[in-house]
Amino acid sequence: MQINLEDTILALSTPSGEGAIGVIRLSGKEAMSIANKVFKGKDLLQVEANTLHFGSIIDPSSKNVIDEVVVGIFKAPRSYTGENVVEISCHGSSYILKKVIELLSHAGARMATRGEFTLRAFLNGKMDLSQAEAVADLIASENKGSHDLAMKQMRGGFTNQISLLRQELIDFAALIELELDFSEEDVVFADRTKLANLVNNIQAVIKKLLDSFMLGNAIKKGVPIAIIGKPNVGKSTLLNALLNEERAIVSDIPGTTRDVIEDALVIDGIQFRIIDTAGIRKTTDTIESIGISKTMEQIEKAQIVLYVHDIRDNHHDIADQINQLSLEQNQHLIVMLNKADLIENMCSAFDIEEAVSTLSGRIPVIAFSAKNKTSLDRLTNLLVEKVKSGVSTNEAIVTNARHFEALDQAYQSLDDVLVGLNSGVTGDFIAMDIRRSLHHLGSITGEIHTEELLGSIFGRFCIGK
Amino acid sequence: MQINLEDTILALSTPSGEGAIGVIRLSGKEAMSIANKVFKGKDLLQVEANTLHFGSIIDPSSKNVIDEVVVGIFKAPRSYTGENVVEISCHGSSYILKKVIELLSHAGARMATRGEFTLRAFLNGKMDLSQAEAVADLIASENKGSHDLAMKQMRGGFTNQISLLRQELIDFAALIELELDFSEEDVVFADRTKLANLVNNIQAVIKKLLDSFMLGNAIKKGVPIAIIGKPNVGKSTLLNALLNEERAIVSDIPGTTRDVIEDALVIDGIQFRIIDTAGIRKTTDTIESIGISKTMEQIEKAQIVLYVHDIRDNHHDIADQINQLSLEQNQHLIVMLNKADLIENMCSAFDIEEAVSTLSGRIPVIAFSAKNKTSLDRLTNLLVEKVKSGVSTNEAIVTNARHFEALDQAYQSLDDVLVGLNSGVTGDFIAMDIRRSLHHLGSITGEIHTEELLGSIFGRFCIGK
Repeated sequence: MQINLEDTILALSTPSGEGAIGVIRLSGKEAMSIANKVFKGKDLLQVEANTLHFGSIIDPSSKNVIDEVVVGIFKAPRSYTGENVVEISCHGSSYILKKVIELLSHAGARMATRGEFTLRAFLNGKMDLSQAEAVADLIASENKGSHDLAMKQMRGGFTNQISLLRQELIDFAALIELELDFSEEDVVFADRTKLANLVNNIQAVIKKLLDSFMLGNAIKKGVPIAIIGKPNVGKSTLLNALLNEERAIVSDIPGTTRDVIEDALVIDGIQFRIIDTAGIRKTTDTIESIGISKTMEQIEKAQIVLYVHDIRDNHHDIADQINQLSLEQNQHLIVMLNKADLIENMCSAFDIEEAVSTLSGRIPVIAFSAKNKTSLDRLTNLLVEKVKSGVSTNEAIVTNARHFEALDQAYQSLDDVLVGLNSGVTGDFIAMDIRRSLHHLGSITGEIHTEELLGSIFGRFCIGK
Repeated sequence: MQINLEDTILALSTPSGEGAIGVIRLSGKEAMSIANKVFKGKDLLQVEANTLHFGSIIDPSSKNVIDEVVVGIFKAPRSYTGENVVEISCHGSSYILKKVIELLSHAGARMATRGEFTLRAFLNGKMDLSQAEAVADLIASENKGSHDLAMKQMRGGFTNQISLLRQELIDFAALIELELDFSEEDVVFADRTKLANLVNNIQAVIKKLLDSFMLGNAIKKGVPIAIIGKPNVGKSTLLNALLNEERAIVSDIPGTTRDVIEDALVIDGIQFRIIDTAGIRKTTDTIESIGISKTMEQIEKAQIVLYVHDIRDNHHDIADQINQLSLEQNQHLIVMLNKADLIENMCSAFDIEEAVSTLSGRIPVIAFSAKNKTSLDRLTNLLVEKVKSGVSTNEAIVTNARHFEALDQAYQSLDDVLVGLNSGVTGDFIAMDIRRSLHHLGSITGEIHTEELLGSIFGRFCIGK
């Protein structure tokens, strides 16, 4: 990535396609003077900041009127990018937008690369790197959960906290490095006990953030829920009931579902990815057995596993079957007793529910009917509760794989600092480990960055942002 | 269509889809006060017109920040609609845009219907009806030709001329109606000779406009060019050469093309629709013969017909073949002598060209090679010339079928006026015919309109304009 803040950049900022208006944005020192060359109306160099002006876009060579537009003027540093910005609202015709961009480009502006407006906002100190990354997440957000996370991160998120702790660590590093200058004299400026305490504090904060990542990532991409169980217990019927459509083929024949079927469902602003799987059983059918091994993969990846069981079947071995799933500690399991409509009455269903609940320990059990869609609200409430239980809404959540990795590496470097402190190594080694953790923490907010890193982050943006 | 100017209306004005920003527009008396209810920043009721303000959109019920936005303020009557207008630039996330629209709608705005912003601009006297119609054409324009026509119409177009003539006619109508009040006394206020002259003048203007419609419509929708000729003369190869891609299947087997193949090509800003057809011959193949009858339909609809002939074939009957096409006077024909690469040299090709030219009268003839793409520039130049010959660039062009029909009816009513004047009928009949033509002329600019007419015009707009 070639970073160049001298050019005035240009892009269509609204989606392409037919619409009432399309907005073209210019940013850079010459934004007003370039716009002036094609704009007929007020002199844009003379107008005040944060004002709107009606006028025409004229082709300077043919003098043809290309469009009647409204131009918005922002002056550095009070703009999105921190530079002079001109926004031109055109009629949303593909011909007009192409033509206006062409004219502005002839007038001296350069086409912006992906994310270049936001990159400039970062380089001009309008936001830190994690906030800039949140802008892309915010634009991509399609539900309340991912939106709230991105908005929180864009408004500062956990990076304020990290920055404060990092500053304290910098102070310690400075003191230790000062000791090195006086190494002949064997003085100690940095209190080793206080340093160990600080490192422990920082690690505790980082640990919490690391733990939040699985949830954060799940909310961003959709919380994966696997529906599993023996053949013909009604897994696909449950999927269809939750989605409220005939998504999966349902029949009385055991082994109807072979492929993994997945669909998205938003409950209470949280996006779930519900995955129906082939029933688990010994089979000689090749396709079915491939399906079963895929089921096992889905169970590993799921954050919530719905174990569906026919309420009429023997339930004494449910506990055994659950143990065989060997779920991780951070995976949630819910036992679903299906076909409650087929037993005498709901009261006996609840009796069975309680019996199974006792057998399975602290695992939640719900007796329901996928066919009649009864007790589904108990399930959806529980799903939302499980996701939200992971984190209080005011706590910081890490959603970005790059942040996760940097935090993880900072944590390990801090481990090294502690090991060094305990074994009494010399200050220069400790200083080196501290510098390493500072580097990783700094890379999150962009206090430390390389052009390569910026290239990979902003290359994921859309053009025009 | 229910017309209601009291509500404050609301819509997304930019195309849907992922983009850097999306713009939501409010228009109506309460635009600022409604926006104020969800906007945290400056008090929008206190700010000046034509200014931009940074702030946040807050969900009033949860106090959650939905987005950080820039709000543009326009005050009546200095806005697109002539009303108070607020434009909110949000991040282009589908969740955010949906949520902000939801909040504004709860705050008291109503979702706009198709074209309702422009309808209000018309009803508030910001533009006449033909200008409003041009807005939709402008947004839909995809090439220079259709853009220039729409822009000309939006900026007044031929309707200024019509309005002036209409005013003169109104004055005459008033004088004649005055005579009716004095009918007992047999006075004559309106000079019949002057009236006849005026009617003739208006008819001349209307005639020119009516004549421009076929061209205007062609420019707007693409000028239809049919490529015709005997089988295997290289019609599909010519299509491919013009499009510069392998659009149609080409083989040495006569009758390869059966379906009508159509594609668009823009030359010099003018859009053409090039239509390849099945070769014309006697055939027993059912599918091919259906193809041939479709060819005949395409010839009728084409504005330009390219008659392709193998340059090696006998050309003495070309004139006969051309006559059999029985083209209309306003259809252009060009004879294309293909496979010039297969004869000795281009000089002998040009000799044949001249010979055919002499035979075919004033019809242009081009010897070329579709295979080697030679002399294609002569064809494209000729195509542009044929289209532009129809009209000088400064002349008014009618592109709208509704305008064409109104002009046509006005012309006929004016005929009735002239007949009346010549036969010396009484003033009341003449006044009636004048009123009828005034009605038709007035319906173009919207001086005369019904709700039904407005509904059908603005129903074709996109929402948000």
